[in-house]
Amino acid sequence: MISEKMAKMASGGSVIRAIFEEGKRLSAIYGKENVFDFSIGNPSFPPPGSVKDAIIDIITNEDPMYVHGYPANSGYPEVRRAIADSLNRRFGTAYTEGNIMMTVGAAGGLSCTMVTLLNPGDEVICITPYFFEYNNYVTTPGGKVVTVPASAENGFMPDVDAIAAAVTPKTKAVILNSPNNPTGVIYPADLLRKYSDMLLEKGREYGTVIYTISDEPYRELAYDGAEVPWMPGCVANCIVCYSWSKSLSLPGERIGYVVVPSDIADGQLIFDAEVVANRMLGFVNAPSLMELVVARCVDEPTNIAGYDANRKLLYDGLTALGFEGAYPAGAFYLWIKTTIEESAFVEKAKSYNLLLVPGSNFGTPGYVRLAYCVSPDMIERSMTAFARLAADCGLGK
Amino acid sequence: MISEKMAKMASGGSVIRAIFEEGKRLSAIYGKENVFDFSIGNPSFPPPGSVKDAIIDIITNEDPMYVHGYPANSGYPEVRRAIADSLNRRFGTAYTEGNIMMTVGAAGGLSCTMVTLLNPGDEVICITPYFFEYNNYVTTPGGKVVTVPASAENGFMPDVDAIAAAVTPKTKAVILNSPNNPTGVIYPADLLRKYSDMLLEKGREYGTVIYTISDEPYRELAYDGAEVPWMPGCVANCIVCYSWSKSLSLPGERIGYVVVPSDIADGQLIFDAEVVANRMLGFVNAPSLMELVVARCVDEPTNIAGYDANRKLLYDGLTALGFEGAYPAGAFYLWIKTTIEESAFVEKAKSYNLLLVPGSNFGTPGYVRLAYCVSPDMIERSMTAFARLAADCGLGK
Repeated sequence: MISEKMAKMASGGSVIRAIFEEGKRLSAIYGKENVFDFSIGNPSFPPPGSVKDAIIDIITNEDPMYVHGYPANSGYPEVRRAIADSLNRRFGTAYTEGNIMMTVGAAGGLSCTMVTLLNPGDEVICITPYFFEYNNYVTTPGGKVVTVPASAENGFMPDVDAIAAAVTPKTKAVILNSPNNPTGVIYPADLLRKYSDMLLEKGREYGTVIYTISDEPYRELAYDGAEVPWMPGCVANCIVCYSWSKSLSLPGERIGYVVVPSDIADGQLIFDAEVVANRMLGFVNAPSLMELVVARCVDEPTNIAGYDANRKLLYDGLTALGFEGAYPAGAFYLWIKTTIEESAFVEKAKSYNLLLVPGSNFGTPGYVRLAYCVSPDMIERSMTAFARLAADCGLGK
Repeated sequence: MISEKMAKMASGGSVIRAIFEEGKRLSAIYGKENVFDFSIGNPSFPPPGSVKDAIIDIITNEDPMYVHGYPANSGYPEVRRAIADSLNRRFGTAYTEGNIMMTVGAAGGLSCTMVTLLNPGDEVICITPYFFEYNNYVTTPGGKVVTVPASAENGFMPDVDAIAAAVTPKTKAVILNSPNNPTGVIYPADLLRKYSDMLLEKGREYGTVIYTISDEPYRELAYDGAEVPWMPGCVANCIVCYSWSKSLSLPGERIGYVVVPSDIADGQLIFDAEVVANRMLGFVNAPSLMELVVARCVDEPTNIAGYDANRKLLYDGLTALGFEGAYPAGAFYLWIKTTIEESAFVEKAKSYNLLLVPGSNFGTPGYVRLAYCVSPDMIERSMTAFARLAADCGLGK
């Protein structure tokens, strides 16, 4: 009787969330210290002290009607100005509050952006492996995901020719995600420029505009001083969806923003429609206290060193055991080959209380994703279990 | 090039929000004290001190990873239990955390509920006058709003026979809102029981289930000790969408919940689908800190006395000038007849810096809505302007 689409989805659910719940179940049986949950991207470091200080200062000293009342649907202008100013300092841009809409996390921004852009039947290209929630944001307004593989041989970089071959007159957008979940790859500026030229050329050919949606929750998470190019600086018609979930460890608070640069096609119309979408989908506005908090923490550095140590520990441990995967340049995921059939690998891992997310959940079977936003202790304790898994898979010496 | 639906909506925008912005513009010209903005339901009293105390205590004493990390998509189980317990104490129900999903305000709850229930082409009955945002939540999954007028002669109570006449085999739900925005009416229990029997009868006739969605942001705002019946206690197959926006003056924080009682048709499936919808639409979860805050303030009384004083002041002032409208039993809106053609009335009012929302924005032309969640001072200062408006409309002696 209820929505047929939702009845199907309710029985399916989120694979990552299901593993996360399985982890809690196993912990209750075997003890938390004997379960190795690498499933979910829940930051493992607390927010910086400046977040706590900002909350207490705002709650103590600001007018509560201002703090908790309705901001504009697009967010407090002064918050949006603080964000624009920070981006301008970092990336040499010239944004104003008119380019920034506050959102309920990057998920809220992506959802609003898809509703803003897509007519039913429009196509959105995603580069596999990719975060499967994109499917939901695309299908809400009746859009269709078209996948283009990024191959292991190519270091999981987007293949510009393959994307070009997938573009049709119905292609409305491409979603890019760099630093990438799940591969940890960072897309370099020259590749992005080549990609942008290709899309402009395709647009001329078809008389269309093909937007790029840059999903950037991991923007600050780049290791060894790697540069993450400012996407709208390399790519034409680019809309950015950002979140503080990872950079400030605030995933529960649902706070992020969308950047709609003025020089993209129909920029003002898109911005206005994003604000309507924010209201229409039921977000109304991003949470008000958190808007004020992030405005004060906009230049706060991310705890990269902590994740970097985990990256080394997990990568070195697993490659010593014979597992194969690229050393991630950003984000906090390790993407490794399963060596045996994926579901058998994942089940074997689970029998050792190792919780990994199957690659088919990112559109790329034969891999698993390990989130290393966990305690270094857990990584160390997990190595005995990984050694058993490696032995079962015929790895190692 | 962008979504045709959104391009149209972006040029339209929200009438209430546009008036709200107009108020800011006029304030800049004439001075804040000379503009009388009755447009938006932004609570005029600060949150109770317990909200501030809860925030500071949680931020100071709880683990920040718990406070700001991902809760379950449905919310913290302990928060949902606190809400269930409070409802059980007040309404003699037997809810558990399995009946409560935390939402991004009532808007988020309504949006998830519509996506959960509706197949494209399904019909949802709304009782005019009604909050126009319902149109958005219904059309996102492809549903269609069917309106049934509540007449002035009938004191703006729902007309059960008229609703019955509007039910078709495609009717999936009816949205009720009591205490009502914009009329201030509270629906009595006997009317609700008669309405419920009618829907059950219609469902048997068509072999369908017709759900009632109770939108309850004003539940605590009832004057003179008026009882607001617990809707699922009177109405079969009822889902409740609640928000603390009004009761705790937290509209900016986007915090509310959905109640899916276990005994409604497909109750468990609906609950599971609501949780998926919360993720799918991009909410992911209700803001985590605010979940913990409301759990501590769940039995906090609402500042009814303050709004009651405003209600008397505005109602007495306007009726003395000859305006016609019912004395509201709940919520914080006064619904009065325009006496002359609606848009002329609204424009004349604006020429005296009186900002009122036209009734046609609620599907019922010939009325205006005045939100009296304003300062008593503003109401007093506005009376000269209302007197001029009354004179222009040929009212008074």
